[in-house]
Amino acid sequence: MFAKTSPDLFSLNTATVRVQWDLEQIIEACVRHDIRGIGPWRDQVAQLGLKESARRIRQNGLKVSGLNRGGMFPAPDRAGRLAAVEDNRRAVDEAVELGAACLVLVVGGLPKGPDGKPVSKDISGARQMVRDGLAEVLEYARGASMPLALEPLHPMYAADRACVNTLEQANDLCDELGNGAGIAVDIYHVWWDPKLKAQLERCARAPEKRILAFHVCDWLLPTTDLLNDRGMMGDGVADIALVRSWVEAAGYRGMHDVEIFSTRWWKCDGDEVLATCKQRYQQFV
Amino acid sequence: MFAKTSPDLFSLNTATVRVQWDLEQIIEACVRHDIRGIGPWRDQVAQLGLKESARRIRQNGLKVSGLNRGGMFPAPDRAGRLAAVEDNRRAVDEAVELGAACLVLVVGGLPKGPDGKPVSKDISGARQMVRDGLAEVLEYARGASMPLALEPLHPMYAADRACVNTLEQANDLCDELGNGAGIAVDIYHVWWDPKLKAQLERCARAPEKRILAFHVCDWLLPTTDLLNDRGMMGDGVADIALVRSWVEAAGYRGMHDVEIFSTRWWKCDGDEVLATCKQRYQQFV
Repeated sequence: MFAKTSPDLFSLNTATVRVQWDLEQIIEACVRHDIRGIGPWRDQVAQLGLKESARRIRQNGLKVSGLNRGGMFPAPDRAGRLAAVEDNRRAVDEAVELGAACLVLVVGGLPKGPDGKPVSKDISGARQMVRDGLAEVLEYARGASMPLALEPLHPMYAADRACVNTLEQANDLCDELGNGAGIAVDIYHVWWDPKLKAQLERCARAPEKRILAFHVCDWLLPTTDLLNDRGMMGDGVADIALVRSWVEAAGYRGMHDVEIFSTRWWKCDGDEVLATCKQRYQQFV
Repeated sequence: MFAKTSPDLFSLNTATVRVQWDLEQIIEACVRHDIRGIGPWRDQVAQLGLKESARRIRQNGLKVSGLNRGGMFPAPDRAGRLAAVEDNRRAVDEAVELGAACLVLVVGGLPKGPDGKPVSKDISGARQMVRDGLAEVLEYARGASMPLALEPLHPMYAADRACVNTLEQANDLCDELGNGAGIAVDIYHVWWDPKLKAQLERCARAPEKRILAFHVCDWLLPTTDLLNDRGMMGDGVADIALVRSWVEAAGYRGMHDVEIFSTRWWKCDGDEVLATCKQRYQQFV
């Protein structure tokens, strides 16, 4: 029924082993496990140094499926929103330096005060801030030829992480923003959506490549933590292969980012985690 | 900006104090706190006895905002699905006996095996089972003049509790099923939805009363448990008064069910919980 996955499409999102290893060690582990793609996080890149990170990634022949992450646009005042746009421009530059396929954006939730607590309940206003911030960064990103991949996050993160929560909402935003804006589809965030198939079909009809990244993990039953209890592929209830078939029917030909935030797996030996990821990827993606 | 709430519209969903008290004690507490409405759960009603529950509720002049709950339609085989329909018919009878404004339905997630674990990843199939089960129960409910209130549940419950996860999906189902089917709007489940306002406006255009119940609590930051960490009104980030204004603009004139699943509040003295509920209701709903 489905196309076979190719090991060439497996990309390691570095969050999966971020507790065990730093970026240098993760790159070495990719080579050791014959992994061809990597999706690094900015804090890890900063720690190793941007140029050094780019050099090692290139040297080891790794493709960068996407840089994680820009976004976090809402802020209580104009200065905060401008600072966010500035930071996103730097993220674009970093993505370019790393040769990333896209810059992944987690757009932010309600605007937060200095204590990290929301200062407003106006989610519609937050969504407007996201739109405005995105439009400004997009102009810069177009100049740098770096596609921006909006990641709709699960509705349980609407208040604190991302107020873009469905593929439909992301598609609406991309239609409005135009050239250079696309979507990162993460199975964890979208598997439940009754409009998932229809909205992926809508992606296929977009004037340019709409799907820029595809992240995989699984939804566990029970899920014991809102943040760090994502599942290894096959341990949960998401029909990953089915969703992959829809993503590919929509024209996506990029890599499959294995991204598992999990205190459970973070406690395991990193090599064991990667071996399991690769095996489950063959079986379930 | 908003109409003032009336104490006459406050209804106590009995889940809020289910750990502290049984139904008999909850009814007494309602009288003590001058609460005019109650939203009981079937297990509590069964414990006290259906006729005795109905008698005490009537005797104390309480309105029943809704009976919680029917639903749970998906099952691995036809026998299981028929048993669910049978159980829902009994729930309709109980709602009639109690004089409830509606029977609230939590429709169920993926079909489960005898061990309570899902036997399938086919969420689209589960949704079909929900539709089919609903259609059968609806026929019976129409005969009994008992409206069925589908409750779209937050997407984080899609696998295990309800695969109807947005107001749009519930509206689609109601349009398809016709007369006698409506919606229970629970702020906890829908506050994040970018289409919330538009779909409530769509409720207003339905040929008959579409909104049959309105449940309130709050979304906490952080939320530490997927099930039992709902917030007291005002402690979270949901703009409850705004959503109430939309619900009322859509024509809803029924009660406001205060329903708080919370291990935190379940540890408190029941009278303290009710006093807080009433005060916060005046302030935030």
